[in-house]
Amino acid sequence: MAAITSLSLLRGAVSVRALSKIRLANSFIPPRRGYLNVKNASNKEEGGAKSAGGGPTIFDNIIAKEIPSSIVYEDDKVLAFRDINPQAPVHVLIIPKQRDGLTELGKAEQRHEDILGHLLYASKLVAEKEGIADGFRVVINSGPTACQSVYHLHLHVLGGRQLKWPPG
Amino acid sequence: MAAITSLSLLRGAVSVRALSKIRLANSFIPPRRGYLNVKNASNKEEGGAKSAGGGPTIFDNIIAKEIPSSIVYEDDKVLAFRDINPQAPVHVLIIPKQRDGLTELGKAEQRHEDILGHLLYASKLVAEKEGIADGFRVVINSGPTACQSVYHLHLHVLGGRQLKWPPG
Repeated sequence: MAAITSLSLLRGAVSVRALSKIRLANSFIPPRRGYLNVKNASNKEEGGAKSAGGGPTIFDNIIAKEIPSSIVYEDDKVLAFRDINPQAPVHVLIIPKQRDGLTELGKAEQRHEDILGHLLYASKLVAEKEGIADGFRVVINSGPTACQSVYHLHLHVLGGRQLKWPPG
Repeated sequence: MAAITSLSLLRGAVSVRALSKIRLANSFIPPRRGYLNVKNASNKEEGGAKSAGGGPTIFDNIIAKEIPSSIVYEDDKVLAFRDINPQAPVHVLIIPKQRDGLTELGKAEQRHEDILGHLLYASKLVAEKEGIADGFRVVINSGPTACQSVYHLHLHVLGGRQLKWPPG
């Protein structure tokens, strides 16, 4: 997603349908306004989150390489790519290639333990590749009160600066 | 750990050795001063973190029930208990009962995928038990720049309020 840093750069270049998907991508780090209280979230954001609950998301396009992303790590089960709205010098998202019902961590079932374990192990591989293995934070948001916007389970891997406490 | 809310309450009641362990417990959420820059951390804190790198930690005492904790969930592999310095209305720590080299996530090996997956699945079980399955955040700190202080892998499960972004 290195090439997609500003929505305005893209307005003339993509279809309305693609644009709506890119808007959703942007919203997986929602705008600062509306963070602190879910009641402040715009109807559009809430609507986007709801419609993405069971249907395809921007991550399907990223997995299919229909939308470019800056890939950091990939294997047959997971894909790791840079967040387009980084919150630290290193900010990578890791997703399962097959969502398999894992719209959010709150939907996890025991049968998902294999992929969950592999995702966490992949976070360590990503940290090594990015040179932050000695200091990084993994964050998983589940649901709107945790700021989740794309309903395809994803791990945030953050590092390269001193992180603060509390974690949001 | 519901009974251990203030170090000062305990000074007269425990041995010096136990006190040093409780200090370490307190420090797994380090004091606000010194958060933003690891260089501000006191030598004592840094020393505590280093000495805990390979040796026993306060979590061993909690697993052995030598120190009381407010247990939320337990099975043969993991233990979940309330953080003594909660950063949200619900703030639970989940740890593997056998550390098995997992002092921090940055030390994970492929053989750890099973326990890592079970820890993440347990976070969903904890969220359900605590009534926050529809909105919670899981955080794993690895290393001093991520605010890790106890070197026994642990997941923070936070919820019960609107969480903010960035996550620290």
